[in-house]
This record gives sequence, structure tokens and C-alpha cells, in this order.
Amino acid sequence: MTIRFVGTNYCGSQVQAPGFPTVQLAFQDALQEVLGERPDVKCCSRTDSGVHANRYCISFESDVAVPAGRLPIALNTKLPPDIRALEARLVPQGFHARYDCLKKRYIYKVWNSRIMDPFLYGRAHQFVRPIDTAALEQIAQVFVGTHDFEAMSSSKRDAEDTVRTVYEFHVTRRGELVIFSVTADGFLYNMVRIMVGTLLNAARGRLTAEEIEQVMRSKKRINLCMTAPAEGLYLDEVFYPL
Amino acid sequence: MTIRFVGTNYCGSQVQAPGFPTVQLAFQDALQEVLGERPDVKCCSRTDSGVHANRYCISFESDVAVPAGRLPIALNTKLPPDIRALEARLVPQGFHARYDCLKKRYIYKVWNSRIMDPFLYGRAHQFVRPIDTAALEQIAQVFVGTHDFEAMSSSKRDAEDTVRTVYEFHVTRRGELVIFSVTADGFLYNMVRIMVGTLLNAARGRLTAEEIEQVMRSKKRINLCMTAPAEGLYLDEVFYPL
Repeated sequence: MTIRFVGTNYCGSQVQAPGFPTVQLAFQDALQEVLGERPDVKCCSRTDSGVHANRYCISFESDVAVPAGRLPIALNTKLPPDIRALEARLVPQGFHARYDCLKKRYIYKVWNSRIMDPFLYGRAHQFVRPIDTAALEQIAQVFVGTHDFEAMSSSKRDAEDTVRTVYEFHVTRRGELVIFSVTADGFLYNMVRIMVGTLLNAARGRLTAEEIEQVMRSKKRINLCMTAPAEGLYLDEVFYPL
Repeated sequence: MTIRFVGTNYCGSQVQAPGFPTVQLAFQDALQEVLGERPDVKCCSRTDSGVHANRYCISFESDVAVPAGRLPIALNTKLPPDIRALEARLVPQGFHARYDCLKKRYIYKVWNSRIMDPFLYGRAHQFVRPIDTAALEQIAQVFVGTHDFEAMSSSKRDAEDTVRTVYEFHVTRRGELVIFSVTADGFLYNMVRIMVGTLLNAARGRLTAEEIEQVMRSKKRINLCMTAPAEGLYLDEVFYPL
């Protein structure tokens, strides 16, 4: 099932501890109402508190005979308005939204102006210094390719293998909105936010492309490789072999 | 001063009764903190609860010597994040944001799909039936020109003179988002929402262009001239002779 959500009111996508609202929990509650049973919902990604999704995938198994195509409309009558089910389809048994995912695209929205757009409050990160998007996209190419991203991940990660392949990294502008778009076969914990935070420090003139390359090679994160706030981050698309 | 706000959390733009949050009240509070005095804030329009503004004007008089250009940034540190001051400038004494306004443009956002975009919840009105924007724009031309808009206003209006001049009415589509855009020298109470509600009933096949013309001529509102919900309405631009 493909879903879309505003992450502001959720403590991330996956259930962490009782009492914390998560997108996964909201779906399990809605599915219970619609199907009369509570399936174990698998999530494509463990997004943080406040992170949004344009397109996010969940998978679950159920014996209840409901045509997949009808599920989104039925679920949307039960889900809170900041989460919507977009599409559903049958997949082979054993399919897992996270492990079967081939690649993902995240976007990060930066509002590049001294005055924030109130409609983007909590939905984009405000950054006042001017951003030269062409220069930043150029620098961002240091991340493209197969690299060890240990220096671009939080120490809280649980992944053993820190090698990932970034297929594309773009930085574009639409008026005052600057959009960072990155596609990879997988992402370490906080990896997108740290890459964006690093690039924003490059925009501030605090880091050069060469220094970022050095940090990547050293596999040791430095303070200037900051984590950009969650509010600007959106899981934008997930790709499956199906 | 030009401002922008998300109307969701406000009981309209103008102070109505004590204890109700309004945009005007938020500005008076912020101005008091910045200027050390509480100016009487004049609003360009009395928008309803839940109505938004891309650009809205307020005016006030103050003897405090603060350069107008610096006011927005100073005020934004005091205002709630769903209201932002965009620009400020000096105007001749006696200027009034409402009475000196030559014309205004409102837009109305309709999300035309069976599945709502969660990012537009409270910021656009969902309408499921297909909308033929070219056909609706054609019908909307019945409103363009100088007419008595009594049939397109709420009985709660306080205007004596119900004649207004609509300069332009457009209906356009960007994907699933349909935008109604109407510019006039002034609007009666609920006039935009009733014109849009009427056009949506035309999209449902419940009203023809001829019937709308008849209702306009009769000066008596009928039930099919419904008031579209506040959440889709935005004051988009205000025009002054300055």
C-alpha cells in the first residue's frame, strides 16, 4: 500500500514505545477497524519524528477477502486526516515493504528567505543565507556513487554495513524553495539530514568540497556535518522490482 | 503592512469578541511588544474563521520612530508561526487598509480527487466529482461585470449597496488542484464562497448557466447557491492606488 502523510504530529513512522503516536500504529488501528483483525504492518523506512512522506510503502498480510483496490477509500474513513492511503495492491506472499525495496528517493525542502512562508512552517527548513543551487549540486556529487557513508550517519545507526550507493543528487530552486533530491539503494540513520546539513554549511562557506571529500574518506563525522532538522525531510518515492 | 497567514487556528481576521484568537489581535499583541504601544490595527478585509491569506494588508498609525522596513523582521520574532509580516511601508496619514483598497483577488482551492492530499487538509476543499475547468470558467463569466450580487451573498451581510464589479473570474487546474480566481472592486459577505459553491453545483449538473443568471437577476439566493467551506478560501492579493 502506498501512503502519504504529514509527519508533524507523529513520533516517526514505526512503533517505538507504547503511548507514542506513529504512522504504523495509526494504520494498524485503521486496518483493525476495516478488516476486523490487526495485521502486523511492515514499513519501508524508519523515518524520524516530524519527517513527512509524499509516497511511502507499507505491507501486511491478511486473510480477509477485501479487494485491494477498495482498501484505500475504506481506510481513509478511519485514518486521521494527516495520513492518507493512496493505492493498494496484492503482492506475492513474503513481500516486505522494507527488504524488497530497491531504492528510495528523499527530498529535503529548504525555504531560502529571511521571512518564512507560514504555509511551510513545520514542512520546510528555513535557511537565510543565499544558496547557489548550481554550486551546491556540484559539491553534492561527492556523495554520488558507491561509498562508505559512515561519516554521514548518526552514531545511533544499527547498520553494520555502512556502504551505500547514491544514484543521483540534485539541488534545484523554485522561487524561495530550494529542493535537495537524493536517490540511493538505501540510507543510514540520519544520512539525508546529515548530507543536507553538511551542504548547508558549505553554502555558509564553512566547508569546501575537498573537505567534505576528506571527511567521507576518513569515515569520521565532524561537527560541521550537522544534522538538518527533520521538518524539511520527505520520503518522496520508493522503488520495487514489482 | 503586507502579511500572510494560515487561517486554520483563527476565528477570522478581525477582533470579534474577547477570548477569540484573530489575526488582528495577534498583530496588536506583537506590535505592542515591538513598539511599546498598542496601535489600532485596520484590516483590509473581514475574513471568516479558517480563511487564509497569501497577501493581506493591515494599516496602523504609530508615533514610535521605527524604520518601516525593519518592522516585519522584528514583528516575526513575536508573531505565532502561522502568521508572518512580509513587507511594511509608510503611507499618508489617514490611509485605511480597507477603505483605500481599490480591488482584491481571492482564490479558492479545490482538491478534485477521491483521495485528499493530507498536506492540503484544512487548506483546500475536497470535491470528488470531475470538474471541467473550461466549462466552469465559461459559466463563471456570468459573474463578471457590474452586477447586483445580493443573490450571491449571505443574509448576514451588513452592506446596504449590493452592487459590485467583478473584473475577472478564472478556473484553472494544476493536476488534482482546481483554482478559482476572482478579482473585484469589493466583495459582499460570503460572496466568493457562494459563487464557488454555486459553480460546484453546476459541476454536479444541478444548476445551468441560465439558472445562475436567473438567480442573479432575481436577487434572491436559492438553496443550490451553497456556501463553499472556508478552508479553501485565500485572500490572494490586495490592490491600492499607492
